[in-house]
Amino acid sequence: MNICVLGGDGYCGWATALYLSGRGHTVSIVDNFVRRQWDYELGVQTLTPIRPLPERLKLWRELTGNEIQSFSADITDYESLASVIKAAEPDAVIHFAEQRSAPYSMIDRKHAVYTQVNNVVGNLNLLFAIRELRPDCHLVKLGTMGEYGTPNIDIEEGYIKIEHNGRSDVLPFPKQPGSFYHLSKVHDSHNLAFACKIWGLRATDLHQGVVYGTMTDEVARHEGLINRFDYDEVFGTVLNRFCVQAAVGHPLTVYGEGGQTRGFLDIRDTVRCLELACLNPAAPGECRVYNQFTEQFSVLELAQLIKTAAANLGLPVEIQHLPDPRVESETHYYNAKHSKLIDLGLKPHFLCDSLLDSLMNIAVRYSDRVDRDTLHPMINWRKARNDRQRSAAAAFSFAR
Amino acid sequence: MNICVLGGDGYCGWATALYLSGRGHTVSIVDNFVRRQWDYELGVQTLTPIRPLPERLKLWRELTGNEIQSFSADITDYESLASVIKAAEPDAVIHFAEQRSAPYSMIDRKHAVYTQVNNVVGNLNLLFAIRELRPDCHLVKLGTMGEYGTPNIDIEEGYIKIEHNGRSDVLPFPKQPGSFYHLSKVHDSHNLAFACKIWGLRATDLHQGVVYGTMTDEVARHEGLINRFDYDEVFGTVLNRFCVQAAVGHPLTVYGEGGQTRGFLDIRDTVRCLELACLNPAAPGECRVYNQFTEQFSVLELAQLIKTAAANLGLPVEIQHLPDPRVESETHYYNAKHSKLIDLGLKPHFLCDSLLDSLMNIAVRYSDRVDRDTLHPMINWRKARNDRQRSAAAAFSFAR
Repeated sequence: MNICVLGGDGYCGWATALYLSGRGHTVSIVDNFVRRQWDYELGVQTLTPIRPLPERLKLWRELTGNEIQSFSADITDYESLASVIKAAEPDAVIHFAEQRSAPYSMIDRKHAVYTQVNNVVGNLNLLFAIRELRPDCHLVKLGTMGEYGTPNIDIEEGYIKIEHNGRSDVLPFPKQPGSFYHLSKVHDSHNLAFACKIWGLRATDLHQGVVYGTMTDEVARHEGLINRFDYDEVFGTVLNRFCVQAAVGHPLTVYGEGGQTRGFLDIRDTVRCLELACLNPAAPGECRVYNQFTEQFSVLELAQLIKTAAANLGLPVEIQHLPDPRVESETHYYNAKHSKLIDLGLKPHFLCDSLLDSLMNIAVRYSDRVDRDTLHPMINWRKARNDRQRSAAAAFSFAR
Repeated sequence: MNICVLGGDGYCGWATALYLSGRGHTVSIVDNFVRRQWDYELGVQTLTPIRPLPERLKLWRELTGNEIQSFSADITDYESLASVIKAAEPDAVIHFAEQRSAPYSMIDRKHAVYTQVNNVVGNLNLLFAIRELRPDCHLVKLGTMGEYGTPNIDIEEGYIKIEHNGRSDVLPFPKQPGSFYHLSKVHDSHNLAFACKIWGLRATDLHQGVVYGTMTDEVARHEGLINRFDYDEVFGTVLNRFCVQAAVGHPLTVYGEGGQTRGFLDIRDTVRCLELACLNPAAPGECRVYNQFTEQFSVLELAQLIKTAAANLGLPVEIQHLPDPRVESETHYYNAKHSKLIDLGLKPHFLCDSLLDSLMNIAVRYSDRVDRDTLHPMINWRKARNDRQRSAAAAFSFAR
């Protein structure tokens, strides 16, 4: 297939682009490289030394003979996006090109507004570009499991049959997102469903869980292809951050009780899910929702798994409970369905000791690049302004 | 109370500001006058000759001795909004200051993006301004009944108890909005609920039905206080538009079968509902949703009521069924709850013959101002670009 990966220089996007290219698809990448800019803004960097996109793509071509075309474009600029869609003529567009950090969106008003405008406008532009230029193209959009929040009932895949006062209907599953970022994904999901309804677009809205890991078969081929591995409090997802903390002897920072339970998946499953979604496109007018994760864990369970794995490597580590900087339930019911991608053929990579070992080995290998000051949470959901850049981590405190 | 009315120069805003001022509240108006600009853009005007805001306010002061302070500010500019909140020190903010036309949002990509960015950013700015500057202030936000769409179950007021697989929870009522405008209100509602949760703000999200009428006791005091009366296909709400069509002998334009059923209310009830919401503020952290309408009608029922009322005035009029330019169910179940404002003391003005007579008399009185070319629907939901400004109504056609 001809597949265009928006946000293909990012964490999930890069792994996906290489995987699809390796599987024989024609792949193009669109990125504006703002993700690299946010690292400069926040004073953080990926644990792994990633190379500039042109260098990565040249190396991939040398290793595989596969050409990945790249476009430097910001999808919030419609004319740029339209010219890419015209040039690339994709059968499927995978849309990763959004600001994807909850803490980043909670820094202050400007970051909240930026996150929502950037994500909503980029997605609206994409809907219009597909409608006007490539109406049969399948849009595979990255949403998040965080759109659902933590309801006290089972979470279905996008829609729920509701019986009420003797009548029934299948309706969008109610959303209770937990940050201005998660809200932007809920806004996108509503816009996406509407565009499918009025214009007959084909869409798959992947409500992805928390991704962990960094190695896929493709990036493992050469160090120059290495993927991002974010461990800081803003962009670091929890399992990756715990691995780094263990590697440098920093306590594992559990927010509150640690009973917060979420869906998780290995990045090797992310890339396969994306291919499965592309190979099995939605029908015209259909807005499918798949819950894209493979296992549920609480944060404390993950911390205990890492503590054990670290001990096996001779790295003793403590678990430190911090006041939760987020506003969320610290213990709650959580049971989310996730069978649709399995039905399409996904064979999950479950979290296991060998993966934890491998993750921790990466963390140890690059531990001289770790900045411990970026591990501590400095963005408090209860405040409207978090002067993160000017605070030293050691001096950080907040009132609940 | 000290009440700040954002969008106080508009249709509902102006009536509300005068009503509250007449009831003895300290009222200030914030407006950027973009609603008047949209009339120029679209080549339409209100049936009634409205005067500039300073002239209106001067007249109101002369008639009543009541001073309404006015601020010229765009709430998407945070610094402007913040300086207003600091100066006005409101106990309640009523937020009408959004782009409120579904067809306007469906003209093309630019209008869709404009509507969502304008509405979402203005509302986000307001949430941050209240949090930072006036945290105890009660936010009374205008949403719309259109957020719910037309589910096949009873519509509750904002939240629904869902029983599922042996468990239950009270969750936000699922939303199925029918235009990029209605979507913007759904985005707002999610942002609002989140801000109440994390910051303990007080909010009332009024899901208002379709408003009709133009005369309130206050604007009736002098012709210089007259309110907007929009009848064009973009900003004209359906009952007002039918009255004008009847007055000038134009067929009543029913979209499709006309079975589309919605909640409606008299503008005299709008203003009272706003006062009731202000006088009974939400608790800190509470995001209440009230469905603000008094009666349900189908579009065809309204057309038949107008046809009868017009005949009684010696104005014979036909009902014309046009292909529905919107994507919506033309017949459907509809039963929306609306008891919470009644419980607070609302005494509805139901739609009656005398009101229809009075509306039609206004339409007849100003019928020399009617531009018949603006009555016909020219914005088709199925198209991504509607070159409305350049089309003659007579030449308008669209494929379904």
